[in-house]
Amino acid sequence: MTIRLIGYSFSGIVMRVIICLKELCIPYELDPPASYKSLKDEDYIANKHPFGKIPVLFDGDFKITESRAICRYLASKYQGKHNDTILIPNNIHKARLVDQFISYELSYYDPPLSKLIYQEKVIKSLNRDQDPEVIKQAHEELAKVLDVFEKLLEGKEYLNGEYSLADLFLCPSTYYVYDAGHSDLWDNRPNVKKWWNRLYNRDAVKKSFEDTKSFWESNPKF
Amino acid sequence: MTIRLIGYSFSGIVMRVIICLKELCIPYELDPPASYKSLKDEDYIANKHPFGKIPVLFDGDFKITESRAICRYLASKYQGKHNDTILIPNNIHKARLVDQFISYELSYYDPPLSKLIYQEKVIKSLNRDQDPEVIKQAHEELAKVLDVFEKLLEGKEYLNGEYSLADLFLCPSTYYVYDAGHSDLWDNRPNVKKWWNRLYNRDAVKKSFEDTKSFWESNPKF
Repeated sequence: MTIRLIGYSFSGIVMRVIICLKELCIPYELDPPASYKSLKDEDYIANKHPFGKIPVLFDGDFKITESRAICRYLASKYQGKHNDTILIPNNIHKARLVDQFISYELSYYDPPLSKLIYQEKVIKSLNRDQDPEVIKQAHEELAKVLDVFEKLLEGKEYLNGEYSLADLFLCPSTYYVYDAGHSDLWDNRPNVKKWWNRLYNRDAVKKSFEDTKSFWESNPKF
Repeated sequence: MTIRLIGYSFSGIVMRVIICLKELCIPYELDPPASYKSLKDEDYIANKHPFGKIPVLFDGDFKITESRAICRYLASKYQGKHNDTILIPNNIHKARLVDQFISYELSYYDPPLSKLIYQEKVIKSLNRDQDPEVIKQAHEELAKVLDVFEKLLEGKEYLNGEYSLADLFLCPSTYYVYDAGHSDLWDNRPNVKKWWNRLYNRDAVKKSFEDTKSFWESNPKF
């Protein structure tokens, strides 16, 4: 069965799924919708995503939406099949601690990053003025979160000890913000710096970032 | 081994775990911290929750934080042991669709509810002025989300067909907002109304709400 991923390779939430597919060596086809506007079409809402969003994944007849749920599905069904990469450990205690770190990402790490991505990427691409106060506050908020991550990563290679979905999920947003003038947040903290370098240099992650970079270089005005 | 839950029974995020414990008939002890302020103590941060939050669950020596991760742990480890209630289906496809509906809750349902809870509960308890414009916008945002839920629930008793963590997770916040003058949002939509009545009348859910109500009646100024 062919896996079909609806979305754009340059979208952070779609990139999350692409990294997961690459990590598990799962072949897939990317199927980009005609436009962002088309996601609100009646047909898209009825047959793809009820809230008009990307990504959506079809595995044969099975459809699933929402990037984190899609990655959990891919790991549950395919990890260990094409290579040795494990994204959700089999041990219940270890697996549920991955969920705990995913919740840290969702509740504390992601909110300031989303504000920075909106200011540094979205607003810039719309040629509108950034709000320096929002950027300053989000930067400070993220600094406090990374102070906690610095302690959590003490003596560990990844958040849960071994690489897992908890690290994978935060790669795309980190990549965008790191690259948009906020690299000091990661680089000033030794454990966080080593962790991010480790993540950035994973084959699946690096390849996904390179593909995005090529896309932006060839489509600067997209 | 005794299960110890750190938190307050009246807190929505702690109530999420309490409903889960009751659903699975797991005995537990509730251990409320001295005060909200004490969650920021060095000792609490070091030994309980690195971000100074509740709930935290100890199952013997095993510690896990964050309400949704805790519930996933309880379901993974204990469902089917004390009764027949299943919160995460064993079938991979069904289980990962539960994750999809959890993501709908987190991404679309929860944000307007959180704004309403802040306005209707937190601000009121602080004797500060509510912002009618924020309330109006959040009400409208939630109405649109519930229009989608109305379609998703067509011909189904629960979001994923059978009861699951996806329904359980949104009980506490729904309870607070429904009760704070916004019941029309649920009651005006036939499928949503039946679904919420069904949820509200589950023994575990009803009992948790009754306990909270008693707490507020005996501690009106907490």
